[in-house]
Amino acid sequence: MLNNKIGGHYSQAYDDELRQAVERLLAMATLAQQQLSDAMTAFINADRALAKQVKQGDRTVNNFEVDIDEHCLDILARRQPAATDLRLVLSVLKSVNDIERIGDLAKRIAKALLKDESGNRPTEAQLAQLNTMGAKVQQMLARAITAFEQMDADTALAVLREDKAIDDDYAQIMQHSLSSMMDDASQIGVSLQISQVAKALERVGDHARNICQHTIFLCKGRNVAHLTDDELQQVVEKRRD
Amino acid sequence: MLNNKIGGHYSQAYDDELRQAVERLLAMATLAQQQLSDAMTAFINADRALAKQVKQGDRTVNNFEVDIDEHCLDILARRQPAATDLRLVLSVLKSVNDIERIGDLAKRIAKALLKDESGNRPTEAQLAQLNTMGAKVQQMLARAITAFEQMDADTALAVLREDKAIDDDYAQIMQHSLSSMMDDASQIGVSLQISQVAKALERVGDHARNICQHTIFLCKGRNVAHLTDDELQQVVEKRRD
Repeated sequence: MLNNKIGGHYSQAYDDELRQAVERLLAMATLAQQQLSDAMTAFINADRALAKQVKQGDRTVNNFEVDIDEHCLDILARRQPAATDLRLVLSVLKSVNDIERIGDLAKRIAKALLKDESGNRPTEAQLAQLNTMGAKVQQMLARAITAFEQMDADTALAVLREDKAIDDDYAQIMQHSLSSMMDDASQIGVSLQISQVAKALERVGDHARNICQHTIFLCKGRNVAHLTDDELQQVVEKRRD
Repeated sequence: MLNNKIGGHYSQAYDDELRQAVERLLAMATLAQQQLSDAMTAFINADRALAKQVKQGDRTVNNFEVDIDEHCLDILARRQPAATDLRLVLSVLKSVNDIERIGDLAKRIAKALLKDESGNRPTEAQLAQLNTMGAKVQQMLARAITAFEQMDADTALAVLREDKAIDDDYAQIMQHSLSSMMDDASQIGVSLQISQVAKALERVGDHARNICQHTIFLCKGRNVAHLTDDELQQVVEKRRD
């Protein structure tokens, strides 16, 4: 647990502040994961009441963002952290941004259901395909957050690589949607709705990947955005200075 | 100019480092703006050579991100900035993230042209509508960056409000695309291509709005994400403590 790795500062209050930053981030992540899970359940079951609940719940995710952002800024201003502590605060700040976006994307999935007034529904096969992609994305996100919590760069790299499978799912669903529209113009509305949900899930995968990058930065001290897979592997294998 | 507001530290080298952070951010922004402008020119004129150039140019934008990120981290670690300096470094860090995404979106517009192998083209009217939206977004982005450079919270608020008009343009283009698909299934490919470009432009508007929020944070010391327009107005009118 990351929380066990924080400590030993001259000030117990400082330790507590760093711990709180991480604890609030994890609480925010738990909420965003619940929002995403509820949004998918709502969409799959055409549960408009649950979708409305997700839409309203996004405010709480946003409040977390502002709260954690200010808490981190306060630590930076008063404690002037260095080395691992500084990287921890910056990783939390960056991850908060990604989790807030995941909250937005959960809301977008809920709105894809709420905006539709035609009552036309995707087929069982289409829903099953989206559900499979959604489960994969949710699992990836959960693993990304655990890797962050455990400061585990190896797991973060493994999870980051899962994004490829999600991009493939997305491409496949988009291909099916396009064919379905081409075959039958009455399917355009439903196909666009499916595309919106698949796109949102694909973006959640990107944000989960970003969180993995922040974990590697936290553990290894290097910004690894835009590195090739080989370069990433080298960074993760290298001992921390 | 922001650059004139940096200075007066015990160390000339520290002043220079803060100035460099801003200068590199502005250089990165200039490049991202050029990428966006080239991407739109390429799409409107079906200029595949220019689109390929945009696709390749995104690497330079990404390199800027890593470079500025490391520069800011270095300032945080060695100089332990406080007050305005700290807010400046954090605002640069956050804005870099948005500008990198704008680079990605320019690439996405270029790829919307490159991926199409049908040779079907939008009508003159459709291209004109996209072009108008593109010009509006580019102007908003340019004004957002100027507001940041000048540390001008009032202008930042005015620019932030322009995002509404861009969202309206987006909704209108999407509505036209949908109608066009419904009327004629042979238009589905072209309509989706138009939707992709319009969506990318709408997202650029969101990132320009984020940069305005970072400017208000820089000037006023408050995280203004998720505030209502009235609350924003109050924050901007209030003198800085």
